[in-house]
Formats: sequence, structure tokens, C-alpha cells
Amino acid sequence: MTTPADPQGAADPGLPPTVVIGCGLIGTSIALGLRGHGIDVHLRDADPEHLRAAVDRGAGSPEPAADPALVVVAVPPAATVEAVVDALREWPRAVVTDVASIKDRVVTGVDAVDDSGRFVGSHPMAGSERSGPEAASAQLFEGRPWVITPGRSAADEAVRLVEEVAVMLGGVPVTMEPATHDEAVALVSHVPQVMSSLTAARLLEAPSAHLALAGQGVRDVTRVAGSDPTLWREILRGNAVAVRSILRSVRQDLDTVLAALEDESDVAELLVTGRRGSERLPGKHGGVQPELAVVLVQVSDRPGELSRLFARVGQIGVNIEDLRIDHELGRLVGLVEISVLADRADHLVEELVTSGWTAYR
Amino acid sequence: MTTPADPQGAADPGLPPTVVIGCGLIGTSIALGLRGHGIDVHLRDADPEHLRAAVDRGAGSPEPAADPALVVVAVPPAATVEAVVDALREWPRAVVTDVASIKDRVVTGVDAVDDSGRFVGSHPMAGSERSGPEAASAQLFEGRPWVITPGRSAADEAVRLVEEVAVMLGGVPVTMEPATHDEAVALVSHVPQVMSSLTAARLLEAPSAHLALAGQGVRDVTRVAGSDPTLWREILRGNAVAVRSILRSVRQDLDTVLAALEDESDVAELLVTGRRGSERLPGKHGGVQPELAVVLVQVSDRPGELSRLFARVGQIGVNIEDLRIDHELGRLVGLVEISVLADRADHLVEELVTSGWTAYR
Repeated sequence: MTTPADPQGAADPGLPPTVVIGCGLIGTSIALGLRGHGIDVHLRDADPEHLRAAVDRGAGSPEPAADPALVVVAVPPAATVEAVVDALREWPRAVVTDVASIKDRVVTGVDAVDDSGRFVGSHPMAGSERSGPEAASAQLFEGRPWVITPGRSAADEAVRLVEEVAVMLGGVPVTMEPATHDEAVALVSHVPQVMSSLTAARLLEAPSAHLALAGQGVRDVTRVAGSDPTLWREILRGNAVAVRSILRSVRQDLDTVLAALEDESDVAELLVTGRRGSERLPGKHGGVQPELAVVLVQVSDRPGELSRLFARVGQIGVNIEDLRIDHELGRLVGLVEISVLADRADHLVEELVTSGWTAYR
Repeated sequence: MTTPADPQGAADPGLPPTVVIGCGLIGTSIALGLRGHGIDVHLRDADPEHLRAAVDRGAGSPEPAADPALVVVAVPPAATVEAVVDALREWPRAVVTDVASIKDRVVTGVDAVDDSGRFVGSHPMAGSERSGPEAASAQLFEGRPWVITPGRSAADEAVRLVEEVAVMLGGVPVTMEPATHDEAVALVSHVPQVMSSLTAARLLEAPSAHLALAGQGVRDVTRVAGSDPTLWREILRGNAVAVRSILRSVRQDLDTVLAALEDESDVAELLVTGRRGSERLPGKHGGVQPELAVVLVQVSDRPGELSRLFARVGQIGVNIEDLRIDHELGRLVGLVEISVLADRADHLVEELVTSGWTAYR
């Protein structure tokens, strides 16, 4: 691992220390973000490999902390209530928060045994199917919602501290009731996970010749099926009520599709509904903010082609705000979508065409 | 549209002309590819706007062709049999092929009324949820399977011509029985489309506050739900038997998941099966060829950051073989995955770190 051991230098002695329990993707990313603001972070993990990897990334110290102001419990969902309650007892003056993807059970579970007001449930909505401290990033939370679920008992100053941390790490604090949070993540995270796994499960027994025809569509639908089954089992069990409710509606729609295919009547309605539903996602991947425009550029598979394109764009002097490349079979298929400021797009197209590229809007 | 009207110059008079009927994404891409090899392409489309757009892209001439060697029918699936039969009659010496995503009905339909041996069913497996001549690319088929389904009656020389065209456009010819093709695409294309639409349909009535929590996962699962419902209705009706069969298995799995969530027993099995299934996809997006390695680089959201990174990588002198950027809310989330030749990866990491980037493997 070729990163400096302590990229941000010594901790600022004026800021109170934080303990992060659980050095997975989320815990290590939070730790890296806090260290970037000069905060003294102490790490703990039951797995010494995870702890060592996080320390090596510069995420904090493996030494115990005497009197932290904040404890972040970043362990798997099924272990969260116990770890939170233990932390509340070990450090009687600290604010304790968690990061679990399910909130109602966690908040209810802690509230049942603790009335100190020092626990604030939270859920930073970031990450992907990658996991572990190696994949952590201090920028993981930038622009992402950080849901805060105070429940009935969290003290105002505890809530404010957690909000400050979220903002410090670039997140957007969103306050919700725990049960509302669970319904929302069932819809936008847990059910899509199940649908992805259901689709991917059909591939297991398929002939290789069939799989050889796979394109980007099935790869996108089944990407999150690559996530950690153990973690997701805990999440789905922890949010069973909300997930069941949505899946029952899915099953109804599936039955309608099957009936339509049986008698060759119309599946159009589901498809139209599905498209309208997908268009409601804010800032949809592939959609651009109003002030950006997409320039399409054809690239061949020749070595160095991408590098040449980026060099030329750099020479032309137009900044690349965002980039999307069509991947099929893990290789470039030919179209690069470059997002640039809208008032630079025509200039970029003209200059690229003059240089011999096939570019258009 | 800022592209030259005829990028490849005059057609080679030694090669026989081709007619492309249907100037959508696939038809226009085929035309562009053939023009790139100096072939005289004549375009036809019932929609004058599509025809004009394709002509403007340099895909061919709107004038009629007297004696084409090949006619490519690139119209929607429900119109394909009729268009193929008309073409076989209009040009009694041409080989005729199609591009429809369903093959059994098309081949059976044509074979029922034509025994000339001049029709060869085919299906170039390329494209995405984009459509129309504006999104066409001569490289669309590079490295992609081009399924050829001769059926019982296609003449050998007709099949060879279609194979030559596929190879010329960079495709990989794959010969299959029409019914086998339909089973394969049901699995890797049609059912994933349905699953994506089923997931996205749940979003239509959801509160905006719930949708605001959406991340990359649901965007990936629902991306193809943005495809053209009219086209997909025709595809699903045309492949109803194979799609039904797989969807029935999906419904069984869904019932198992619902039962497991009802009594809190184990959903782990589906999740493990789903992960193993997703790993079977060849050249899986995010997987790399053995000779490449992935370097991870943190980027912030500052303007020009991506451009600076690419400029530095260019200066370091390591070619970018492939690129993947995490997008959430349509913006960069912080990690860029650069694929480079494996023996250059360490050098790139060292040089980037020396320049102040946070990079690692």
C-alpha cells in the first residue's frame, strides 16, 4: 500500500478525540475524513487485519482513547445495538452514533436500555459493492445524504454534534423518523438488491454459450448482486417489514407480466411505468446538471487512445466535469461521454473534429 | 451536428452496394461501419427525419440502389418479417439479413413464404438504452457477439456474406439455432429488462424524500428501465415463451424470499446464489483482463480535477487502458479506477503519490 502513514500530520490538540469502532469501508472512510480535519481518531476492530489496514491508511491510532467526545459504531447491523450500548457504558460522557442501514430496530433497541440522550442513530448513505478498509475514501460521503434519526430521546446537543460531523465530511444531513428511513431505504436500496440477486441467480446454471451474449444491460442489473451476502442477510432481516411490503407489490406486477405473456396481451404498461419510475431518480446517472452538456467522442480500441483524447481535451482547455465510458465485455465499445460546462461544448466539439476526432452532441 | 458529411470519402466502385432499411441506432451504426470500409450504402427509412439525420452523419445516400448485394433490414421486430419478405421481392438477387432481437419467429415467418435461401437471420448484440441515428457509432459492434441464425434454408454463400459483414464491423460471429438464441437472450437481456422495469415501477409513486436517498445501486438496477417501451413490448411478445419460463423461476425464488422474510428465516441462500451467478458473467464490468491492473485514485469535486489527473497520468507516460468513475447523484463520488498494464501499475502509483495524489492498488 503506497500511501503515507499519516497524510494529515499530527492531530489538532484543540479538538476532542473520536473513537471509531469497526474498520470496514464506512468506519475507515469516516476516520480518514476526520483525520483530514485534524481530529484525533482512535480505531478499534475485532479483526486485527482490518485494524492494521486502517492504521496503515492513516485513518487513526490503535491506542485506546481516554475521553472521546464522539464514538462512531461502524459494525454490521446485527451487532450494532450491543456495540452502541457497550460504548455508552464505556465512555459515559461521549455522544455515540452508528452507521447501520436499518434504523428502527437499532433506535428502538438502544432506547429500551438507555435514556442518557447520548445516542443518535444515523446512516451515511454512501458506498458501493466494494468493502473493507482498502476501499475507504475520505470523500466517500461528499454530496451524499447522511440520514439522522434522533428518535424520541436524543439530546439536542448530541444531534447537533452528529450533524456537524456529517457536514464536515461533505455529507448532507437529512433528519427522518427511524421508520420512515427504513421505508425509504427499502425502496431505493434493499428491494433493488433483492431484484439484482433474483436476476443474477438465474445465471448460475446457464450454459456458457448463453452467458457469452451478455451485454452491459444485464451487467448493470446484476452489479450489486456481487455484494456481501452476510451483510445483506442482516440488512434484509432487520428491515423485513418494509421490504416485504414492496416485494409483494413487485410480485403482483410480476404476475401481471406473466399473465400478459401467457395470452400475448400487453406488457406495455409495466414498461412505461418502469421508465417513468426510473426518470424520477434525482441526478440520474447519465442525466446532467442543467449547466453541463454531454459531448460524445468515438474512440477505437488502439492502445493509448483514451490518453490521447484526454491530452487533446486538456490542450483545447476545456475541463472534463464528468465522464462515462460504455463498457462491454470489460473493454471500450467506442463512445466516450464527456460532460463539460454547457457553454464550452460547441467549442470542444469543433476543436476535436478539427483534430480528426469524431465528436458530436 | 458538427461532423463531416462524408468522412470516408467516395465509395469504392469495386465493392457492391448495400441497402440499409431502418436508420435507428443499429441500422445507422451498420451503415457507418460499412461506409468506413468504402462500401456504397443506400439508406431508407419511413421517417424522413431519421433518414436525414443518418445521411447527415455520413452513413450513406438517400438515393435508391439498383442492384445491391446485401440488404440489411433494421426495423422494429414486429415489422421485420414483412420488411424482409418485401426486400427479397424488390431485389431478387440480394442477400437479405435482419437485426431483430428475436430470431425464431422471424426465421420461421420468412421461411414460410420464401425458399430462395437468400435470407439469413442475424442479431448483432450491441447497443444500450440509447436509440436513434444520433447515438450511432461505427464501433458499436466491436468485440460484441453477432449471432447468425441460418435456420434450415439459408444458402451457404449467403451465410458467408453476413459473416463477412459482421467481421468487417468488428463483431464476433456466433452461429446458433434460432430457438437457442431466443433462450439465451431471454436470460441475458429480456428478463433483466423486465426485472429492471419491475424495480423502477416501484419508484413512480414514491415520496420525493425517499428518492432523495437513492445511490448508485438502484440507478444501476433501473438504468435499462429507461429503454423504449414500444420496442421492448415487441421484443417481449416476440419471445414470450422463453421469457415466461425464466420469469416463472424468478417468481418461485421471489416467493421463497417473501416466505423467508415473513418468518425471519434465511434469505442468505438467494444472496449467495445471486453473487455466484453474477460472477459467471464473462469479462464482468469491473473485472479486468489478466494483463491489466487497477489503480485507485481519489479525486475531489473541484473543477478541473479530472483533467489535472489525466494530464499528470499523461506526463507520467502510462497509458490509460480503461476507466471507471463512481457516480452518485450524477456526480463524482471520489474514486477513479484507472486500468493500466499490470507492469506499469506500481510506477503509476508511486509517481501519482509523489505528485500529491492519493493513489493505491
